[in-house]
Amino acid sequence: MAVRLVDIPTPALVLDLGVLQRNLSAMSQRMKQAGVNLRPHLKTAKSIDLARLATQGHSGGIAVSTLREAEYFSDHGISDISYCVPIVTDKLDRVATMQNTGATVRLLTDDLEVARAMGRKAKDLSARFGVFIEIDSGYHRSGVHPESEELLAIGRALHHPPQVELLGVLTHAGHSYRLRGREGIQRVAEEERAAVVRAAERLRAQGFPCPAVSVGSTPTAVFANALHGVTETRPGNYMFFDLAMCARGVCRLEDIAVSVLTVVIAQNPEYGHALVDAGALALSKDVGVQAGPMASPGYGLVCDTAHCRPVEGVIVKSVSQEQGWLGMAEANRRLPFGELPVGRRLRILPNHSCLTSAAYDRYYVVDLRDEILAEWPRVNGW
Amino acid sequence: MAVRLVDIPTPALVLDLGVLQRNLSAMSQRMKQAGVNLRPHLKTAKSIDLARLATQGHSGGIAVSTLREAEYFSDHGISDISYCVPIVTDKLDRVATMQNTGATVRLLTDDLEVARAMGRKAKDLSARFGVFIEIDSGYHRSGVHPESEELLAIGRALHHPPQVELLGVLTHAGHSYRLRGREGIQRVAEEERAAVVRAAERLRAQGFPCPAVSVGSTPTAVFANALHGVTETRPGNYMFFDLAMCARGVCRLEDIAVSVLTVVIAQNPEYGHALVDAGALALSKDVGVQAGPMASPGYGLVCDTAHCRPVEGVIVKSVSQEQGWLGMAEANRRLPFGELPVGRRLRILPNHSCLTSAAYDRYYVVDLRDEILAEWPRVNGW
Repeated sequence: MAVRLVDIPTPALVLDLGVLQRNLSAMSQRMKQAGVNLRPHLKTAKSIDLARLATQGHSGGIAVSTLREAEYFSDHGISDISYCVPIVTDKLDRVATMQNTGATVRLLTDDLEVARAMGRKAKDLSARFGVFIEIDSGYHRSGVHPESEELLAIGRALHHPPQVELLGVLTHAGHSYRLRGREGIQRVAEEERAAVVRAAERLRAQGFPCPAVSVGSTPTAVFANALHGVTETRPGNYMFFDLAMCARGVCRLEDIAVSVLTVVIAQNPEYGHALVDAGALALSKDVGVQAGPMASPGYGLVCDTAHCRPVEGVIVKSVSQEQGWLGMAEANRRLPFGELPVGRRLRILPNHSCLTSAAYDRYYVVDLRDEILAEWPRVNGW
Repeated sequence: MAVRLVDIPTPALVLDLGVLQRNLSAMSQRMKQAGVNLRPHLKTAKSIDLARLATQGHSGGIAVSTLREAEYFSDHGISDISYCVPIVTDKLDRVATMQNTGATVRLLTDDLEVARAMGRKAKDLSARFGVFIEIDSGYHRSGVHPESEELLAIGRALHHPPQVELLGVLTHAGHSYRLRGREGIQRVAEEERAAVVRAAERLRAQGFPCPAVSVGSTPTAVFANALHGVTETRPGNYMFFDLAMCARGVCRLEDIAVSVLTVVIAQNPEYGHALVDAGALALSKDVGVQAGPMASPGYGLVCDTAHCRPVEGVIVKSVSQEQGWLGMAEANRRLPFGELPVGRRLRILPNHSCLTSAAYDRYYVVDLRDEILAEWPRVNGW
């Protein structure tokens, strides 16, 4: 007998397969047309099933944000993994161990001391390390400026074949999340492209090989006009999208592929709210949507179970650890208590799918009839 | 050879055994002096090792906030478990399954329909359910008013021995988190006590047995002056405390028992920050401390590894998914980059230990010499 969304314990993480496939296909096609390899970032999905779908038609390489993810994907047969967080030397033994089982783990640094220590650590561990130089394309989190002397110094330190190989340059235009709409994000995408292509040119002019030129953020990947000189992109959130991406005009509400299945556990008409069993842990406390064009969705937008369509402007107004407080997005409206009886199941679209998903150990994959087709495990932690 | 904090992968959740024991002992003593049973809430700790320590000298019963926790503790031999979130009927089969293996799972409701459905469900499942009535003592999340007619109606619906047993009344003074300092919190503690004792008196006057009178929040448990008429308290956060409790005057900085071990992964002097490998997932995005008396700690207060003492006003100013941005609590000061070289390990005191801990699958338990004494697993999810 078919298992449906009414049959599983709440709260649970639901993944709509049709929406997912549409999102994956759109990004894959876009990158093919641009002549650029898609190296999906698995920090959002953290699932081998999703990695297999997302890499179809491209090189098969992926990006990750933790060594635990790298180990998990390596254990599941993915052999080309970029760990896109600055490396420190005391993590290299873990990297070497992974590489001894067959995977290649590409590393990242923006630090001259780390770059200089690479060769010695490679010798100590009888390992070889391929390393990207991180470029700051305007986000100003980390990375060296493309016109800096430091870029060339790090390039020199990393150009020590065969122990240490300079793989290329890499950037993340995280400042694209601060903007809204096609035009602004296209400007950032061009900054992202120009910075990293310029850095590659300067390294090559010094005689350093710099094969890979890697960019990546979901907003810039969705809107970039041109990717000349870029060899790969690393978006991740695009698989699922979320209310934050929606508020920035990067996707539509119906493009959000993940939701949290929950149930109404109490009504409190006197104080105007109802409670569900999805709270701070089940939704996360990310409120990164507050500046969007939609009325603020609080901690998530409440939808029906069958079609994941919004229930009359109902949102999660507040959260305790295991309880969400349902209220109206608009202050002067009253919650439709008649439609929210204790025991009713709902689906909540998340503000930030990367953080919400991290609370769960699996996806319940559903089709249009909310039948559960599969359970896909996730890897969390470090 | 001793394993120390320099030897384990980052980010990691560190639990200081000495501080923990002091916190546990203080609360246990306090409740013994008040003549009240301590039923520790394990929603924060989610660990059988902690449950065993925290119940010492009391009844051995615990409180939990998810059925997964209940199943985990039941599997580990704890037989008296209160599930302190309003129950819905389609969760009762899971409760019945647990009870068939020997545990007693005490339930909670504030809903007349749920109370009425209990008897039928108990028959269907060949089960017996003990249920508390939730009382609103001023938090206004859920619960019935102690003077309401609904209280008596729910009492009547739940008084159906042997299938359904009215266990008593229960409240959570969550509004104590909105206050600061002994005096205000003592007022809330008295509201909490008075509401639930009054509700019990009204039920008893109608001839319903109402043996348990249960209160619980860490602030009120720490500061309550009197607990006449109360039979048990259910604090949870007091085991670890956190910056939020500190900001409210409920604990001192040196009473915080958990911290996140992290490492500096990049420096960005041009933009005034350094990065660590503990970000939104490793720390949580809870910012519930912003109104406290200390300068806002952002997403956490940065401490040294050896003694967990603050590093010169350094805080986590901002977070990406896997990266924390270190900056100064005071806007006009410059980050001491010399003390924060790439590769330096740090410990971060969390804003909200319940949410931060939930990202981890284990505690690294340390002593004063930061030697790792044990790894205690945690249960997460639902």
